[in-house]
Amino acid sequence: MKRLILALDLEERGAALDIAELLKEEIAAIKVNYPLVLSTGMEIVKELSKIRPVICDFKVADIPYTNGKIARIAYENGAKAIICHGFMGKESIEACSSVLATIVVAEMSNEGSGDFFEKYSQRIVELAIDAKAIALIAPATKAERIAYIKSMAPEVKILSPGVGAQGGRASDAIKNGADFVIVGRAIYNSNDPVTIAKKINGEIESTLTSA
Amino acid sequence: MKRLILALDLEERGAALDIAELLKEEIAAIKVNYPLVLSTGMEIVKELSKIRPVICDFKVADIPYTNGKIARIAYENGAKAIICHGFMGKESIEACSSVLATIVVAEMSNEGSGDFFEKYSQRIVELAIDAKAIALIAPATKAERIAYIKSMAPEVKILSPGVGAQGGRASDAIKNGADFVIVGRAIYNSNDPVTIAKKINGEIESTLTSA
Repeated sequence: MKRLILALDLEERGAALDIAELLKEEIAAIKVNYPLVLSTGMEIVKELSKIRPVICDFKVADIPYTNGKIARIAYENGAKAIICHGFMGKESIEACSSVLATIVVAEMSNEGSGDFFEKYSQRIVELAIDAKAIALIAPATKAERIAYIKSMAPEVKILSPGVGAQGGRASDAIKNGADFVIVGRAIYNSNDPVTIAKKINGEIESTLTSA
Repeated sequence: MKRLILALDLEERGAALDIAELLKEEIAAIKVNYPLVLSTGMEIVKELSKIRPVICDFKVADIPYTNGKIARIAYENGAKAIICHGFMGKESIEACSSVLATIVVAEMSNEGSGDFFEKYSQRIVELAIDAKAIALIAPATKAERIAYIKSMAPEVKILSPGVGAQGGRASDAIKNGADFVIVGRAIYNSNDPVTIAKKINGEIESTLTSA
C-alpha cells in the first residue's frame, strides 16, 4: 500500500491531469485545494477521480448549513474525502462527515498557526472523533506534535502535510505515527517527479521496516 | 449609504444574477460563498461585480502560501474583499490583506463555534488589526459579542451575519456597534425580496436615528 498523497497545488487543468497521470502508481490519493478548483472549475475533481481518489482540501470552516453544502458539492463531483477545520464545533464537522469521509485539521504546518492550535488541538481531536471524522491532519514540520495527536486518537488515521518545500521529512512523520504523508511542490516542481515520489515511498518503507 | 449586505447563498447562476439585479438599490455589497462559486464557476464573481461590489466569503484558513493564491484569484475575478479566518496566524491574514481588502472572522454565528471563539476572539482581533484587516465579522445572533468586539477595535468596521434565518435581528446588531448587517435567506427566500430588504434598511435607519 502506498502512503504518499500528492498535494496537487497547480492552477492549470492540463498540467494537473498530466502530473496526476504520471504519478498514479506512486500515490494513494490526490489532494486538491481551492487554487486549482477556482482556476479550473469543480469538474477537475471528477477528472482527477478517474486517476486516483481525490481529497478536497477545502479546510471547510463555516456554519453547519454552509459546510454541508460544500461537502455535498465535493461528493457530487466524485471526491472521496474532504478536509475540514474543527474550530466551528461538532455540528460543523458533522455537516461534512454525514455527507462524505471527513478529515479534520488537528494542527497546521505553518508557524503562525501554533498560537491557537497548540492550545486547542486536544479539544479539536475530541470533537473530530465525536463527529465521526475518519482521519486527522498533523504536520510533518512539527513531528513531535504528530506523536502527541496520535496518542490522543490511536484509532484515527493521521495525514501529514509539510513534507518537502515546507521543511518536514517523511521519515520523521512516519516515525511519529503518521499513516500517510502529503507532498506537493517537492514532487511536481522537480525535474523528475516519479523518481522523487519513488524516493519518498522508499523512505517511508524503510522507516516502517526499521520501526 | 446602505448598510445591508446580501448573502447570496444560492447555487444557480441565473437565479443569483436575477436576485442581485433585483436588489441592487437596496444593498451595499454582495457576499458570495463557496457553494455558489463551486456550482457555477469563479466567473460569477466577475458577473456579480458589475452589479454591486462582491465580498468573497471564503473563510480562508490555510497556510500563507495557499491563502495568498486564493486571495489573488478572488482579486483577479473582481472581488473587492475577502473574508478570512484569524486562527492561522498573522502571516496567513497578511497573505490575503496584501492582495485585497480583508475581513477577519472575529466570531461565528453558530452555537458550536462559541467554544473556541469566545476564548480566543480577543487574540484574533489583535492579529487582524496587526495584519491590516479592514473589517471584522461578528454575529448578530450573539449581539452582546458585537459590542465586546467593537470595544476592542473601535476603528475597524464590523459586519454582522446571522440576521433572519439564523435568528439575529438587524436592530440589535446595529445597536451593539455593527456597521453593516448581512442577510441572505430571509431576503431571497421570501416572496417579495425588495420589500423585505427595504424593511431591513428601514429598521437599520430607525435604529441609527434613535441611537
